[in-house]
Order: sequence, then C-alpha cells, then structure tokens
Amino acid sequence: MAFRKFLPMFDRVLVERLAAETVTKGGIMLPEKSQGKVLQATVVAVGPGAANKDGKVTPVSVQVGEKVLLPEYGGTKVILDDKDYYLFRDADILGKYID
Amino acid sequence: MAFRKFLPMFDRVLVERLAAETVTKGGIMLPEKSQGKVLQATVVAVGPGAANKDGKVTPVSVQVGEKVLLPEYGGTKVILDDKDYYLFRDADILGKYID
Amino acid sequence: MAFRKFLPMFDRVLVERLAAETVTKGGIMLPEKSQGKVLQATVVAVGPGAANKDGKVTPVSVQVGEKVLLPEYGGTKVILDDKDYYLFRDADILGKYID
Amino acid sequence: MAFRKFLPMFDRVLVERLAAETVTKGGIMLPEKSQGKVLQATVVAVGPGAANKDGKVTPVSVQVGEKVLLPEYGGTKVILDDKDYYLFRDADILGKYID
Amino acid sequence: MAFRKFLPMFDRVLVERLAAETVTKGGIMLPEKSQGKVLQATVVAVGPGAANKDGKVTPVSVQVGEKVLLPEYGGTKVILDDKDYYLFRDADILGKYID
Amino acid sequence: MAFRKFLPMFDRVLVERLAAETVTKGGIMLPEKSQGKVLQATVVAVGPGAANKDGKVTPVSVQVGEKVLLPEYGGTKVILDDKDYYLFRDADILGKYID
Amino acid sequence: MAFRKFLPMFDRVLVERLAAETVTKGGIMLPEKSQGKVLQATVVAVGPGAANKDGKVTPVSVQVGEKVLLPEYGGTKVILDDKDYYLFRDADILGKYID
Repeated sequence: MAFRKFLPMFDRVLVERLAAETVTKGGIMLPEKSQGKVLQATVVAVGPGAANKDGKVTPVSVQVGEKVLLPEYGGTKVILDDKDYYLFRDADILGKYID
Repeated sequence: MAFRKFLPMFDRVLVERLAAETVTKGGIMLPEKSQGKVLQATVVAVGPGAANKDGKVTPVSVQVGEKVLLPEYGGTKVILDDKDYYLFRDADILGKYID
Repeated sequence: MAFRKFLPMFDRVLVERLAAETVTKGGIMLPEKSQGKVLQATVVAVGPGAANKDGKVTPVSVQVGEKVLLPEYGGTKVILDDKDYYLFRDADILGKYID
Repeated sequence: MAFRKFLPMFDRVLVERLAAETVTKGGIMLPEKSQGKVLQATVVAVGPGAANKDGKVTPVSVQVGEKVLLPEYGGTKVILDDKDYYLFRDADILGKYID
Repeated sequence: MAFRKFLPMFDRVLVERLAAETVTKGGIMLPEKSQGKVLQATVVAVGPGAANKDGKVTPVSVQVGEKVLLPEYGGTKVILDDKDYYLFRDADILGKYID
Repeated sequence: MAFRKFLPMFDRVLVERLAAETVTKGGIMLPEKSQGKVLQATVVAVGPGAANKDGKVTPVSVQVGEKVLLPEYGGTKVILDDKDYYLFRDADILGKYID
Repeated sequence: MAFRKFLPMFDRVLVERLAAETVTKGGIMLPEKSQGKVLQATVVAVGPGAANKDGKVTPVSVQVGEKVLLPEYGGTKVILDDKDYYLFRDADILGKYID
C-alpha cells in the first residue's frame, strides 16, 4: 500500500507520538520497558470536522504541526509507510502546547 | 440470488477489502494464517445517507472507487455473487487515501 | 384470526424470507439443517414511518415488492394465516437489490 | 374499587387480549398450558399521547376498537372490575389488522 | 418537623395510597400479609412540572384529588405528620379513574 | 482553608441537614445509632443554575433559607469550617416545606 | 518536553491542588499517609469552552487564579515541568470559594 496522502474522516486527527525520552534528566539511561507510553504528539493530518444533525460542520480544533497532549487510553493505531501513527477524536485530545 | 445491483441503505457503505499481501517487503512468502485482516478497501457502493430527525439527508462522505481505511472491528459481511463484501457505516470509516 | 390486511406500525416493515436454496450451484442437495437462515426477503407491507418529536413523519425507505437484505439478527416473527413473516425496523434493513 | 372509566396516561394504550384458541384448526382440543400467550388484542382505551419537550402532543396511532398485534414481552397488567387488561406504550404495538 | 404544606419539586406528584381491602368480595377476611400493595391512590400535592432545556415548563397531567393507578414499582416514600405518602414522577403514573 | 463564601457551581445546591431528633414524640431518648439520616435540610447556598446547550441558564428552583426534603441517597459531603454540608443537584431535591 | 504554555481543550480546566495540611488545628503532625487527597485547588489554565452541536461555544465558568472545590473522584493527572497538575471538566467542578 504505497502511502499516498491519508485524510482522516470527520473529526478524527492523525498524530505521531514524540520519541520516548531514553535518558532521565539526571542522565540515567532508561531501559525501553520503563519508557512509558509517550503522551505528547505532533498533529500530522486532520479530518474536515464532524457534521451536526443539520449537516453543519464544526471544524476540528487542532492544526497540522501543533504539539498536543494525548489521553492515556483510546486512539487507533494506523501503520502508514511502516510508521506508527494514531487516530484520535478531536474531542479526546486533552490540550495543546503553545510556544 | 443472481446479483443485480445492490444498494446499501441509509449511511451504509459497501466495500471490498484489498487482496492480502502474501509476500513481505523482503520477499518472504507469508503463510495465509499470518496474513492479518486487510484494513484497506475499495468503496463499491454507497447508500443515500442518513436522514436527521427532520428528514434532511446528509450524504455519505466517501465515493465509489475511493480507497479507505477500515476499523479493526465491526462491519457486516455480505456475499454477493459468491464474493465477500462488507457493509460499514460511513461514520465508522477511519480515513481515505488520496492520490 | 382470519388474516385480513396487516398494517405494521410506525417504521416497521413486514417481510417474507425467500425460500432457502436446497441445491448448491454444483447441484448437491443441501440437508435442511445446513440451509442457513435466508437473509434475502421480499417486502410485504410497510408502516407509515416514524414521527420525529415534532410529529413530522419520515416515510420508510423500502416499498412493497422490493427485494431486501436482512441483518443476521433481530426482527420479530409474526404468523399470519399460518405463514411466517418477520417485522424489521426500516433502519435495520441493510440494503436492497435493484434490477 | 368500582370501575368507573379508566384513562391511560400519555401514550399508553389499554388493551384486552382476545380469547385463546382452545381448538386447533384440525379440531384438536388444546390443553390450557399449551395455549401460548395471545398476542392479538382489542384496544379498550387510549391516552392523549405523549408531549414532546416543547409540550406539543403527538396523539397515539391506534383507536378504541381496533385489533392490534402485541409484542411477545412488555406491557403492564391492570385489573379493572376483576378483568385482566394490559397497558402498552403506543410505540411498542407491532401492527394492526385492517378489515 | 411540624408538617406545614409540602410542595413536590418539578414533575413530582405526592399521592396517598387507598386503604387496602381487608375483606374479599365474598366476605372473607384477608390476613394483612396477603393484602398486596395497593396500586390505587389519591393525588395529594403536585409539583409545578418539569422545564425543558429552554426553560419552558410542561405542567403535570394530574390534579389534586384525582384517583390514579400507580405502577407496581418505583416511587419514594415520604413521611409527613407520621403518615405515609409516596412521590412519583408524573410520567410514571399509569392512568386515572374518571367518574 | 479559612471559609470564605462558597458558591456552588451550575445547578448545585448546598444544604445543611437539620439536627436529628434525639427524643421520640413519646419522650423516649433515641440512641444515636438509631437516629436515621435526616432528610430535612436548610438551603445554605445555590449555584447560578445550569445552562442548556444554547447557553441559556435555567436558575435553580430553591432559595437560601428554604426547608427542603432530600432524597435518601446521593449528594456530596462538603466540609466547610469544620461543619458538614451537602451538595445536591437542584433536580434531585424532592420537595420543599412551605409555611 | 520543555513546558511552554499548556492550553486545555474545549471545556477542560487545568488545576493545581493546594498543599496538604500537615498539622491539625490542634497542632498535631499528620503522617503523610493520612493526609487525604486535597480537594481544594487553584485554577491554572482554562480551555475556550465546549461548542454545542451548532458550533456555539459556552465559555467555562471558572477563571485562572480562582480557588475551587474538586470532586472526590475523576480528573486526569498531567505532569508539566515535573509538577503535578490535574485536568477536570468545567461541569465536574463542585464550587468555588469567593473572598
């Protein structure tokens, strides 16, 4: 499945988790097992938004490139070009980091 | 049941899963059992869309011929002319591939 | 209960399942037990449709005589004049066959 | 409790089940135990209908005297003047027999 | 807690169950244990009705003094001046007796 | 946490339960254990009311100082200045006593 | 993850719990284990509010700097710059302290 562009549907958001921190602040190497799931991610693609029952579309509230905080659970893993991405609903994203 | 044309109802979408990849990128033959369920599919037929409680119909958001990504679970198997197809709700389709 | 005409209520649809195929394509007789439930059916009677909370009625989307595909589960068996019929909600019918 | 007139509330419908058939078509007497629950009934009294959240009342869709088909389950038994009646919601009545 | 007047809130209705019949029609005294729960009651006080989400209040559909039929289950027991009363939602009252 | 004024949010109501009656009408002292939970209470503070999805606020239907009847269960205990108060939703308060 | 500014999404509110009281009023040191979860907190950041299905946004009802009372349960722990914060929905905050 050559990866052409992937467009999430409705209010789904495609994100890529940031690389796990392998070294603690104090410089100690973290074994992979104890590198918990990374909850920070970058938005890679966004859907058009969900339509309400009258067909009016509310766009998603994050944009491509933004850094967001994911919830601990949920999300759907999607493999594109052998890389792991995750689909979340816009409403499930906890917050975003603003420079 | 000779297969005339099949029209899904409401917001249902009829899809045909792509053939499973039987050879890994490295050229290794994959035994059928380990060829997981294929989540990429082609849209074969679409319903008119679902009506909201005021009767206003919101058309489905995929078109015949588009390549879509299916969720891991759900869908109803439909056999037409001895071929396997699957019915999904428009809202359950995760995304589509755009050339 | 002489069977006068039976009018389903609201968005219910009365269907009669097609006869099970007793012979495979290859001509092999199928023992009754292995003749799975027939999911194709003909629409025999339809209700007026369901009213939304403002009383506005949305008619059902199938008509008498149409061939439809039933879901695997659900439906209420109704015996009229010693014949088996089934009541389904309009929204539960998966699709229809168009000549 | 002398039975004056009983008015069901909202969208409830009071019905009286038809007498069970004690003899099969072939003339064989049916022992009481095997006379299943009778699902045909006559409408005895109807409520004014349910109001939607704006207070607009949608009247019930059956009238006193009509023959209706009851669902297998549900309904509330009501004893009036030592006779058994049953209260069903209008929406739960499956259909009606039309002469 | 001297019992001043008690006003039920929203769509609640305060009722007092009728006295249980202690003698059968045939004149046989009924031991208290077998005098089932009395489902007939008199309306003692009514709330103003429930407001829909726009704040519009739909008044309750029973009035003080009316005889009503209670459902088998539900209701909240309220003791006022050492007497047992019961609070029901207007929508849960099955019907009323009309002279 | 010095107790300044506490404002319940939305449609919540802060109440203080009346003191339990320690002596029966007949003058018999009640051991603390058998003094059931007191369901009568005084309203101490009220929230602004809940907004419906259009943002329109429906004020709560009880006022500070009113005597109300609490449901048997529910409510959140809140300790302010070492005194026990309880938060209930306006809709869960059963009724009020009117002089 | 250097902590730039964190913006909660929709109707989420970021709070920091007040320090647990380690000494009782009477001056007795409290062992950490018995210092229950602190339910008072300060609002650190607020989301824009939740949009209703027509897209109209209702702002949250607390502001940065306000002292609020948290429910016993719920909330999502968020670590920013190695400090513990908690995300709550606006609707789940019980009340606020007003000077």
